[in-house]
Amino acid sequence: MQNNAAIISVGNELLNGNTVDTNSTWLCSRLLSVSIPVVYSCAVGDDIEEIKNAIEYASGKADIILITGGLGPTDDDLTRDGIAKFLGVELEYHPDIFEKIKKFFAVRNYPMPEKNKIQAYLPAGTSEIENDLGTAPGIFYEKDKKIIALFPGVPSEMKQMFDKSILPKLKKLALSEVEGSAQGDILVVRKIRCIGAGESAIAEMLGDLMKRGRNPLINCTVDCGIITLHIIARAGDKNKAAALAQEDIQRLRGILGKLVYGLDEQTLAEVVGKKLLDAKKTLAVAESCTGGLIVKMITDVPGSSRYFTYGWVTYSNESKVSELGVKKELIEKFGAVSSEVAQAMAEGAKRKSGSDFAVAVTGIAGPDGGSEQKPVGLVYISIASPDGINTEKFLFGPRDRDFIRLRASQTLLNLLRLKLDI
Amino acid sequence: MQNNAAIISVGNELLNGNTVDTNSTWLCSRLLSVSIPVVYSCAVGDDIEEIKNAIEYASGKADIILITGGLGPTDDDLTRDGIAKFLGVELEYHPDIFEKIKKFFAVRNYPMPEKNKIQAYLPAGTSEIENDLGTAPGIFYEKDKKIIALFPGVPSEMKQMFDKSILPKLKKLALSEVEGSAQGDILVVRKIRCIGAGESAIAEMLGDLMKRGRNPLINCTVDCGIITLHIIARAGDKNKAAALAQEDIQRLRGILGKLVYGLDEQTLAEVVGKKLLDAKKTLAVAESCTGGLIVKMITDVPGSSRYFTYGWVTYSNESKVSELGVKKELIEKFGAVSSEVAQAMAEGAKRKSGSDFAVAVTGIAGPDGGSEQKPVGLVYISIASPDGINTEKFLFGPRDRDFIRLRASQTLLNLLRLKLDI
Repeated sequence: MQNNAAIISVGNELLNGNTVDTNSTWLCSRLLSVSIPVVYSCAVGDDIEEIKNAIEYASGKADIILITGGLGPTDDDLTRDGIAKFLGVELEYHPDIFEKIKKFFAVRNYPMPEKNKIQAYLPAGTSEIENDLGTAPGIFYEKDKKIIALFPGVPSEMKQMFDKSILPKLKKLALSEVEGSAQGDILVVRKIRCIGAGESAIAEMLGDLMKRGRNPLINCTVDCGIITLHIIARAGDKNKAAALAQEDIQRLRGILGKLVYGLDEQTLAEVVGKKLLDAKKTLAVAESCTGGLIVKMITDVPGSSRYFTYGWVTYSNESKVSELGVKKELIEKFGAVSSEVAQAMAEGAKRKSGSDFAVAVTGIAGPDGGSEQKPVGLVYISIASPDGINTEKFLFGPRDRDFIRLRASQTLLNLLRLKLDI
Repeated sequence: MQNNAAIISVGNELLNGNTVDTNSTWLCSRLLSVSIPVVYSCAVGDDIEEIKNAIEYASGKADIILITGGLGPTDDDLTRDGIAKFLGVELEYHPDIFEKIKKFFAVRNYPMPEKNKIQAYLPAGTSEIENDLGTAPGIFYEKDKKIIALFPGVPSEMKQMFDKSILPKLKKLALSEVEGSAQGDILVVRKIRCIGAGESAIAEMLGDLMKRGRNPLINCTVDCGIITLHIIARAGDKNKAAALAQEDIQRLRGILGKLVYGLDEQTLAEVVGKKLLDAKKTLAVAESCTGGLIVKMITDVPGSSRYFTYGWVTYSNESKVSELGVKKELIEKFGAVSSEVAQAMAEGAKRKSGSDFAVAVTGIAGPDGGSEQKPVGLVYISIASPDGINTEKFLFGPRDRDFIRLRASQTLLNLLRLKLDI
């Protein structure tokens, strides 16, 4: 069997619809980064028998099994017992682990709840994966080229533990597999991020490049106006696969032109930030309907303080007047959601902040507040640049509040990107 | 077999770590709302054989199978073929569906790409699930009390289609199962949302209430400081189960007191908003390190314009001075991240907005900008209320930027909630 992996996510909350499983997605991406493909992923409830069955089933499909969730201190945390049952062993008490747990609480000046002692138990024949951020140790098992690694479900703890303790092992494993063996193909995945055209229009532009069986394989996903092309290249070694993917990136960029805003994990806000930084320009933002989302996206980027200066969320008419200097008569005449007010907001933001660029958005995010003339989803976006000011009207409805706010924010960032290209 | 369900998510992007599968979580929650438990959930790649195998395996575990993804117009959309193979039938062309697809483009004044014609094909013996928001119709199959329903992977389309076309059918099915039959237990899940104590401290307070086998079963999940207790009540009919869950809610509220901020899907921002509305008070927000996230969370709530007035993201020192009237000397003496500046920001926001409450936050979200005296994760939160002003210092690090920003925002909202309780 080649090195491939399966992921099991444990927790009733995953099957009850209470929690989105972001852990498995993150692990898939990390595994692919060391060329280990995930062939199976599933979610099971907090039940010893179910956990045991899932491990059994997964061990028939993959030789690396990663399990998250169910290692906490409470009675619904049963993954320790599930893996012990699968291995046919008992749980063993580890006084050294208990010392670490006690210390964790002591450092924070909290009394240690009795419940936490259970976390010092590991199935016989397994070892601890250290957890620097919490009290739940992970569990590691390796035998006959099979690896099973268990992590707590708390994403920040799981990620840190995986990267520190397991990823280096897997990297070594993946490399040892490659040397001298032509049978194990290496996968390299790159992404091209597009905005400004629909999925099928982009597919038509690409034509036969998206045919099944082609290498690289090109897949397409859509998320709120962002089209992502996944370029999956296969080759006998990593450099060849990377070169194949890179050729496709060049080819697709040539075909798609301005529709492409970035590569891999780049966000629109990151790309805009980089362009501002390169051009040594600053940006101010005045938001109404997006309510802080645009600034939030911009400041998600580390170092954004180097180009982002002022942000206003002028939700009320009074704040548009007092903070941005929008004329009261303008709001009375055209309404707060109008091309005129959007433009006045951008002008006010530019004037007050002294920034090179200022953007503004006003609209109706819903669910209430729409009318026949001004329906939910109506949004005006204005961009004031050193060369002048542009205001555009958009209809993003009928959709829900979250969609309209996100779509308006993405669209504004994209218009700003195109403006910065010139 | 009882009515239970399995969910299959199709798409290479799910196993490549490129896309988080939120569809299955949403479907789990919707199914539970009509008392249909999900017993299995998995993700498979874009491959006809894999899709067929997954349907086969799921059909051994559940009698309702919901499948999302792979119904688009591009060559990597193979779910149509996978289900046809499972059913052992051919794809058939439906001219009426093709007319709808053509109309979809005509209304939007776009030329229809040729690729979209494939979406007018359905496996023989299945019927269309109408899609009002996109071009991909869903596919419905029912035979011998088995149901298979397929939806496109685009969340907004899938959700609208499920709610409109499938949920009513399932509701009827679930009800028919209950009448006169004591064997099928009904599940009701309620949630209690807490903030202000850790998972094991809360588990200790609850003691035996969290024991396995108890009815209701109480599960616990943690997400960035928010502890959610899931109360899963079982009974022969829905009213009895709901009453059992309600009794536990009362009991847990009594034990946990102020740690409980809300129930079910309530967010902190919603709870704060309701309290402001009830008290007829208004709120202004001045953010630095959280960069718009707090206002974004507040304005996620429909109708928030009734209490939220002014928002500033004063990222630069100049904007703190010019927009909030923070004294320049104060920043020079204590630094932008200090108790003094946080307080001055809140005071300035209250004065300038004329709101009843004003909150402010300043801190170091990282990854850069930390020092020994002021490490990454240091955050000051200030709340100006009609009774005066309170400023508190927090250490949320060492953690990543996203965690620190979210934790700071949640903490601020929680402090405001407690203040509004008095």
